[in-house]
Amino acid sequence: MERIVECVPNISEGRRKEVVEAVVNEVRSTANVTLLDYSSDESHNRSVITFIGEPESVVEAAVKLAKKAAELIDLTRHTGEHPRMGAVDVIPLIPIRGISKEETVELSKKLAERVCEEAGMPVFLYEESASAPNRVNLASIRKGQFEGMAQKVLEPEWEPDFGGRRINPTAGVAAVGCRMPLVAFNINLSTDDVSIASRIAKIIRRSSGGLDCVKALGIMLEERNIAQVSINMTDFTRTPLYRVLEMVRFEAARYGVHVIGTEIIGLTPMRALVDCAEYYLQIENFSADKQVLENYIQ
Amino acid sequence: MERIVECVPNISEGRRKEVVEAVVNEVRSTANVTLLDYSSDESHNRSVITFIGEPESVVEAAVKLAKKAAELIDLTRHTGEHPRMGAVDVIPLIPIRGISKEETVELSKKLAERVCEEAGMPVFLYEESASAPNRVNLASIRKGQFEGMAQKVLEPEWEPDFGGRRINPTAGVAAVGCRMPLVAFNINLSTDDVSIASRIAKIIRRSSGGLDCVKALGIMLEERNIAQVSINMTDFTRTPLYRVLEMVRFEAARYGVHVIGTEIIGLTPMRALVDCAEYYLQIENFSADKQVLENYIQ
Repeated sequence: MERIVECVPNISEGRRKEVVEAVVNEVRSTANVTLLDYSSDESHNRSVITFIGEPESVVEAAVKLAKKAAELIDLTRHTGEHPRMGAVDVIPLIPIRGISKEETVELSKKLAERVCEEAGMPVFLYEESASAPNRVNLASIRKGQFEGMAQKVLEPEWEPDFGGRRINPTAGVAAVGCRMPLVAFNINLSTDDVSIASRIAKIIRRSSGGLDCVKALGIMLEERNIAQVSINMTDFTRTPLYRVLEMVRFEAARYGVHVIGTEIIGLTPMRALVDCAEYYLQIENFSADKQVLENYIQ
Repeated sequence: MERIVECVPNISEGRRKEVVEAVVNEVRSTANVTLLDYSSDESHNRSVITFIGEPESVVEAAVKLAKKAAELIDLTRHTGEHPRMGAVDVIPLIPIRGISKEETVELSKKLAERVCEEAGMPVFLYEESASAPNRVNLASIRKGQFEGMAQKVLEPEWEPDFGGRRINPTAGVAAVGCRMPLVAFNINLSTDDVSIASRIAKIIRRSSGGLDCVKALGIMLEERNIAQVSINMTDFTRTPLYRVLEMVRFEAARYGVHVIGTEIIGLTPMRALVDCAEYYLQIENFSADKQVLENYIQ
């Protein structure tokens, strides 16, 4: 079975198209990776690039991309609305198929070391790869941004994981880490009362005591005149989609409200859906790795 | 998105290992196809070979395999319990991903033409590719077997689709066609009364007036002392797994019996599971082709 990793680097350039193209070309020119998408935001002055491929090739592409970004982007001249600390600001690695979270953490450390050496930027490990609890959250690492980073890395608890206490004078520092795939999963309710969606969102989300790896908000879909529980699943391997749906269903029943439909926005790993099929079909002893035909495609 | 076809040729040799290996090696030596499995049955004197890959490469591998089988297998010397009419007896092509049934039918016609020309065997199109209703069922085409085939092809309605009315004197004739992937899906009931499983099987299967593309039998799982509805889904794109499960569930309810679990035996295309996730999660406007990340892997 082929091993597949996704990589979603964010670079601090969203205005100069030729710079974005030059950076993206580093991905295009790497064998065994597929560029899925890239988009730039002018007001953020930032671009997000998405690609997948086999693990070693993804690392290769990410290193080349980081090197090119460090070469072409000068943060001393960068303005934009989005917080940033590096030319390549953050490089998440996401396990998709045939590779565990633990293996992806190891891979992220190799990537971090190479970004440090080859792009000349100190690197913080974050999320699943973090070396300390205060480094899990990217916002905590990035606080102070590029302008404050030369001072921040001198503080005892903020030495970068790779590259020592001297930032790259123009490219700054980067964060690298393993995170799980996000699934944007929205649940539509048979009511126009958004307060019901908000109450349910509060019950299911982690931050107010609900399910782990769930972020949720109640919103109004004005054009359909229905309320929606809008959800980000940050690790469907820990909290599967069906558990959230069934919980929303039984909480909505209290108000005589039912689920009229759901949406998955953008991409989802196959596994998030297969896990749900397995639950609802009550399949015993199923191994998606061994029994899903597509997993044998080389 | 990569296009993937599965191919499951049956050859009329299950005893001489060196012949089977030589035939299988034709698959192994073809680029862009993956050999998934092969197994021989001595009493049938027959082997089944399974491989997948991109459509043109699968055709290439199947043609090479047919040529080698025709070269090494002499049906005038073949005995075995399984009916057969050719050295390579039947070559089904099965659409897995990124290719429609219609496109696979077209592909099967190209394959049939090449098998005829390069392996020197007349070919009948069967199943989805059949050129007449009496050629859909492989057993109808094969009736009379190798020994009767020289005469049979002279009958007005039995001229092969390719190659004319003269069979290959040692390799016979072959059948080539598109069929849909089979899914072996068993449903376990909370009863030790096999007659309940049999009655439900009769209700759901096509042959006694039930659901299209469903074959079913009631059987007893002795080791667990429970009854099972044992099902072959011959085209899950027409009759999805969830529909069969829900029908079994409501028919079982008449007897106060419920579904305690299900099994999928062997391989299933991802799509059979994703279709069920889509149903049970009530996902609106979902496109598996566009929204399942793995479909972008090249």
